[in-house]
Amino acid sequence: MKFISTPVKGMNDFMPSDMRLREHVLGLIKETYATYGFEQIETPAMEHIENLTGKQGGENEKLIFKIMKRGRELEKGMESGEIADSGLRYDLTVPLARYYSNNKNNLPTPLKALQIGNVWRADKPQKGRFRQFTQCDIDIIGDSSIMAEIELIAATSKMLTRIFSEVGIREFTVHINDRRILKAMAAYAGFTEDQYDDVFITLDKMDKIGLEGVKESLLKKEYPAEAVEKYTAMFEKVTPDLECGRFCAETCASHLDEKVPDSMDTILESVACMIDPSVHLVFDPTLVRGMSYYTGTIFEISIDGYNFSIAGGGRYDDMIGRFCNQPAPAIGFSIGFERIVTILKDLNWQEQAGGRKRTAFLVDEKAGPAKLLEVFKKATDIRAQGAIVTVQPLKKNAKFQIETLEKNGYTDIKKVYGDTEL
Amino acid sequence: MKFISTPVKGMNDFMPSDMRLREHVLGLIKETYATYGFEQIETPAMEHIENLTGKQGGENEKLIFKIMKRGRELEKGMESGEIADSGLRYDLTVPLARYYSNNKNNLPTPLKALQIGNVWRADKPQKGRFRQFTQCDIDIIGDSSIMAEIELIAATSKMLTRIFSEVGIREFTVHINDRRILKAMAAYAGFTEDQYDDVFITLDKMDKIGLEGVKESLLKKEYPAEAVEKYTAMFEKVTPDLECGRFCAETCASHLDEKVPDSMDTILESVACMIDPSVHLVFDPTLVRGMSYYTGTIFEISIDGYNFSIAGGGRYDDMIGRFCNQPAPAIGFSIGFERIVTILKDLNWQEQAGGRKRTAFLVDEKAGPAKLLEVFKKATDIRAQGAIVTVQPLKKNAKFQIETLEKNGYTDIKKVYGDTEL
Repeated sequence: MKFISTPVKGMNDFMPSDMRLREHVLGLIKETYATYGFEQIETPAMEHIENLTGKQGGENEKLIFKIMKRGRELEKGMESGEIADSGLRYDLTVPLARYYSNNKNNLPTPLKALQIGNVWRADKPQKGRFRQFTQCDIDIIGDSSIMAEIELIAATSKMLTRIFSEVGIREFTVHINDRRILKAMAAYAGFTEDQYDDVFITLDKMDKIGLEGVKESLLKKEYPAEAVEKYTAMFEKVTPDLECGRFCAETCASHLDEKVPDSMDTILESVACMIDPSVHLVFDPTLVRGMSYYTGTIFEISIDGYNFSIAGGGRYDDMIGRFCNQPAPAIGFSIGFERIVTILKDLNWQEQAGGRKRTAFLVDEKAGPAKLLEVFKKATDIRAQGAIVTVQPLKKNAKFQIETLEKNGYTDIKKVYGDTEL
Repeated sequence: MKFISTPVKGMNDFMPSDMRLREHVLGLIKETYATYGFEQIETPAMEHIENLTGKQGGENEKLIFKIMKRGRELEKGMESGEIADSGLRYDLTVPLARYYSNNKNNLPTPLKALQIGNVWRADKPQKGRFRQFTQCDIDIIGDSSIMAEIELIAATSKMLTRIFSEVGIREFTVHINDRRILKAMAAYAGFTEDQYDDVFITLDKMDKIGLEGVKESLLKKEYPAEAVEKYTAMFEKVTPDLECGRFCAETCASHLDEKVPDSMDTILESVACMIDPSVHLVFDPTLVRGMSYYTGTIFEISIDGYNFSIAGGGRYDDMIGRFCNQPAPAIGFSIGFERIVTILKDLNWQEQAGGRKRTAFLVDEKAGPAKLLEVFKKATDIRAQGAIVTVQPLKKNAKFQIETLEKNGYTDIKKVYGDTEL
């Protein structure tokens, strides 16, 4: 019999120490969002292949793990689509749209949903990128007001502060922009609507290639020099901060609904009063967010000093409504759970002091049934007081056994022989 | 674009109320086993197809959801095995064997492992049987002593008492037997070793067809009348209780290692002193457990008055060692998580009183940004005191909105207009 010990390529076995960290972080996520009135929901790992290939998933649709129909015989010339009617979900957004469409009559409005679950992508495995990983998505469906923006951004900032303060990190930056301002700035510069997405893809590279790089890149793509000049000139005048949203909005006011900058002001002001003072809140006109389904406010959170975001999202008012044939304004945050866990592990996260006391009874094999009974009675008493107790046979190599227990937080380790007093 | 709202056949969308119950039960499971020194581990949902079809999975091997290789083109005459190199796990036992084999050098001995995870079976969906469901397995690997039996049975009894006492259920029965006693009784009656498995399959039906039914069935299968008579006569003399193990062992003593009944006595006596007095502990000579990999003690727990077990397991000292080429005695309990949740839901489980206070601010759309800011400041204060707060737009149909919130535990619901004092 052939047996393979390693996990499937690109997937992980989690050790007890990994799980302690993961469960701890998940606990803080659940607990924080609960305080803001979010409720957990869950969908199956498998989705209909039609839903997974409906063009909402972008590049991820190329990475689907397809699942074979049961009992389907292979025939000559058959396409893979004919033998697979489902696949593993590659994100939690498509399943959320299906879930809401299926259950909307039994759900509160607005629905404030927390989803935690694994997703699968047949990506090329590399450091920090896995074929199975945990996603956390937090969404509000059915609230078109800016209260949704404020609640979501405040809750997420709070959650990150709680998690990272345990390793001494308190400085985050929340980047906020609005797809409507982004578009108005492009329109004001003279780009046409069909050019926006491509212009934004270039703008999105600002943090890597700088403003000069963006300019060069746009000119190389043969966009009119005048538009490129007018567009990049705006970014020269601002750095991301609380005020610059107003500048951007005023500059391109002729192309923008006047309510947008007012709403942005209220969002920024309200969030500012809800978050930790060490969290920086900035309007960032260069923030793009890749997915085309965003319709309004967009946001990302990064740890100061780290060169990537650990949470991102935005408002997507049209997508879910399209699936369920009724208006369903929506806004969501996706948390980079695996990134968070990796950072904490790298920073040598340890369980906080004040954890539960751990006692180990290591019982010699010759101790006899009466002594064993005594040990178990004692263990039961200590457990009733809330401590963690393990009862194990005393190994021949007790030194290694004891070291391992100590490494796992056992501070009270007792060897028990037939004549040991407990 | 075709879009399907229902979940994949046989799978479930979980509503917020479902998730509250599931998370609550999972919390009690994790918390109780932690007290006994168990640590969580996790394996990927996908496993190599070779491991899933290695004959450890019994009937479940017919129910594998196979996953297609990426980029593999279909060719004429290709077997389905050639286009699928992995599948979704159908249990947590095969992955545990692989996990231990892969990671044994980095794991403590004994390993006391708690696994919680989804498994998938392409079974015919029916009431209470799903194609994706959550399993909880608790295993001790590397402890051949009866301390493992005692810890595992005591922890599981304690866990069930904690969960079910919330709906007023405290009476459970823990059925214990030993495959070696089971075999010795068959040997004593005169059955040959190759007949054991089939005889046990018949014995296992005792609760449905009674002892007379077992007798008839064995005779119908043309086993020697003398053996059938001698075998069933033993069961006539006993009812499952604490003493009958000794009777069974003494009757067939000539076919049994004398240590077995002594160990059983110590297990029963030790467990008895660790569990709630309303949990009944019985030696049950009719307990069989289906899987052929069990080698020693076997056990099941049922709720008194319910006609099925909600947890079961046993010692399987050979299986994991075969995979990792070194001795790895093991014992495990598998918890019927979905059954437990279904029973609690049927009994109308509610969150315990003393939960957190829930406040809702329903803000009129004309309230204005200053009032909104005031609401969010107030919400932040209340949340800092540990309460749950949600801020939402006041709907036109406020009556329905308020009813829904009340149903979800919100006792403090405030409508906020521009002039409302908070």
